[in-house]
Amino acid sequence: MKAFVTGGAGFIGSNLVDRLLQRGYTVTVYDNLSTGQLRFLESAKAQPRFRFIEGDILDAERLTGALAEHDIVFHLSANADVRFGTQHPRRDLDQNTIGTWNVLEAMRAHGIERVAFSSTGSVYGESEVVPTPENAPFPVQTSLYGASKLAGEALISAYCEGYGMQAFIFRFVSILGERYTHGHVFDFYKQLLAHPDHLNVLGDGHQKKSYLHVQDCVDAILVAVERASQRVNIFNLGTDEFVEVNDSIATIVEALKLSPNLNYSGGERGWIGDSPLIYLDCKRMRSLGWQPRYAIRDGLRATLTWLQQNDWILTRRD
Amino acid sequence: MKAFVTGGAGFIGSNLVDRLLQRGYTVTVYDNLSTGQLRFLESAKAQPRFRFIEGDILDAERLTGALAEHDIVFHLSANADVRFGTQHPRRDLDQNTIGTWNVLEAMRAHGIERVAFSSTGSVYGESEVVPTPENAPFPVQTSLYGASKLAGEALISAYCEGYGMQAFIFRFVSILGERYTHGHVFDFYKQLLAHPDHLNVLGDGHQKKSYLHVQDCVDAILVAVERASQRVNIFNLGTDEFVEVNDSIATIVEALKLSPNLNYSGGERGWIGDSPLIYLDCKRMRSLGWQPRYAIRDGLRATLTWLQQNDWILTRRD
Repeated sequence: MKAFVTGGAGFIGSNLVDRLLQRGYTVTVYDNLSTGQLRFLESAKAQPRFRFIEGDILDAERLTGALAEHDIVFHLSANADVRFGTQHPRRDLDQNTIGTWNVLEAMRAHGIERVAFSSTGSVYGESEVVPTPENAPFPVQTSLYGASKLAGEALISAYCEGYGMQAFIFRFVSILGERYTHGHVFDFYKQLLAHPDHLNVLGDGHQKKSYLHVQDCVDAILVAVERASQRVNIFNLGTDEFVEVNDSIATIVEALKLSPNLNYSGGERGWIGDSPLIYLDCKRMRSLGWQPRYAIRDGLRATLTWLQQNDWILTRRD
Repeated sequence: MKAFVTGGAGFIGSNLVDRLLQRGYTVTVYDNLSTGQLRFLESAKAQPRFRFIEGDILDAERLTGALAEHDIVFHLSANADVRFGTQHPRRDLDQNTIGTWNVLEAMRAHGIERVAFSSTGSVYGESEVVPTPENAPFPVQTSLYGASKLAGEALISAYCEGYGMQAFIFRFVSILGERYTHGHVFDFYKQLLAHPDHLNVLGDGHQKKSYLHVQDCVDAILVAVERASQRVNIFNLGTDEFVEVNDSIATIVEALKLSPNLNYSGGERGWIGDSPLIYLDCKRMRSLGWQPRYAIRDGLRATLTWLQQNDWILTRRD
């Protein structure tokens, strides 16, 4: 089985690549290295079944050439920066919507029929139903990131119907674990290294978040593509827990043995379009036999340990 | 009040323009005339408060220049051809998604905060709930057209949240009436002119459709923008009736005094992505005091009468 992984040098992508190689797949990574890290592919590069192509999904010609002779595409390449969407409103549209269309067209050019897609729990906006199932009430988008990912999902689903493809769409909560490179924990850790005596927190700290460990996330992706049989298979991926941002902070400062003053920016939302609670009902994914192995606190600690052992990631230039 | 109407030379757009002018608005139409007709703007052009600009929404510079000094945008410009989406998969993305993004950016450049958008009942895909309300279960897209309009809705909603805009989003059933230029009735009428003795019908004729008269549609748009007060206001627009394609055919052949043989292509769907039933719950729009005045059969007859009186439309080159 030949897998093509866009964004395969990224946090989730590179963890997926390692697991695909372990399972015997031949793997091509296609990544523009804008946020991906070649260091994440060091063990993969030692394998003969692995190939890396530096390329951008917005370069349709290069993408189409690279995609030939693969059986399945894991399309993880994206602008994953939710927070600053309003500062560069074209970026999400380009990278998450038009980029996804390019991937679909390249697949169509080569008759490749299976695609897995990293969407987001942000597509639920501020859902009326919590925990939120996949068939929650038709949401209203609150962020450019969520909007661009919803558009990607919609294009993929329409291609399935129109051209006979099969899709596996994953709506993630935030992901933690080894090779974690952005988000709450990263920001908090970086701040505490710079000034161990205080921590600036966006919002009031009561925003509730659910986190999933990257290995649990990759498990679910593999289970889904191997067992799900609908034309369009949509799965929430999260844990049956949530924590407040304040709980995350408590775990982090305890692990680092610090007791900083906490300065809250205030308000229910950390930023425009931030959802006070993304907490997903994951029964559908569990019904395929998957279950997460890491509790949120274990994931937080594993993430911190990895960050402490990989301080180069703190000073990288994206 | 200065209104900017993209697609204002089209079927729905030009009817809206006439009504806006009657209500005292100053109106600018921006239309690339790819399917719009200058003849639809003949009465509008006689008014001093009217201005026409030939331009494409994909020409961001021209659009941005034209949009200055307006109070509200009615964004109706779109690729409205649902059926042939799979034959030109970029067209919906360009005209309905990227075009909408251009409109939003142009609005943002000028601080224009209010936008009305013509979406479609096709965004519900094949809904589990019929009649389908606005908060129906999160749908799976089945057409590139629906996907591209959903993406447009999502961008608009995210811009409302991110930049303080206010939106009025309308999910239409099929629209009938004066200046109707494409769709079932048009195709059937054109066929029967060419060969009165037989009619080719896509699908099995049992596809159920709801139709709304264009004047009822324009009424609803005006009521909504004048009365709805949420940040993102989403309204289904349809009638509380539906008919089968076979019923439409009966009305048409009766009005034309013909009795053609009917040749069905067969199957539940007329084309890939066709929905066997788009039938919308319109309570939300009715709660603002709107109600449709035309029954579907009256709308069908009015459409036929207009087509009979305007045979130039049958031989136009789009």
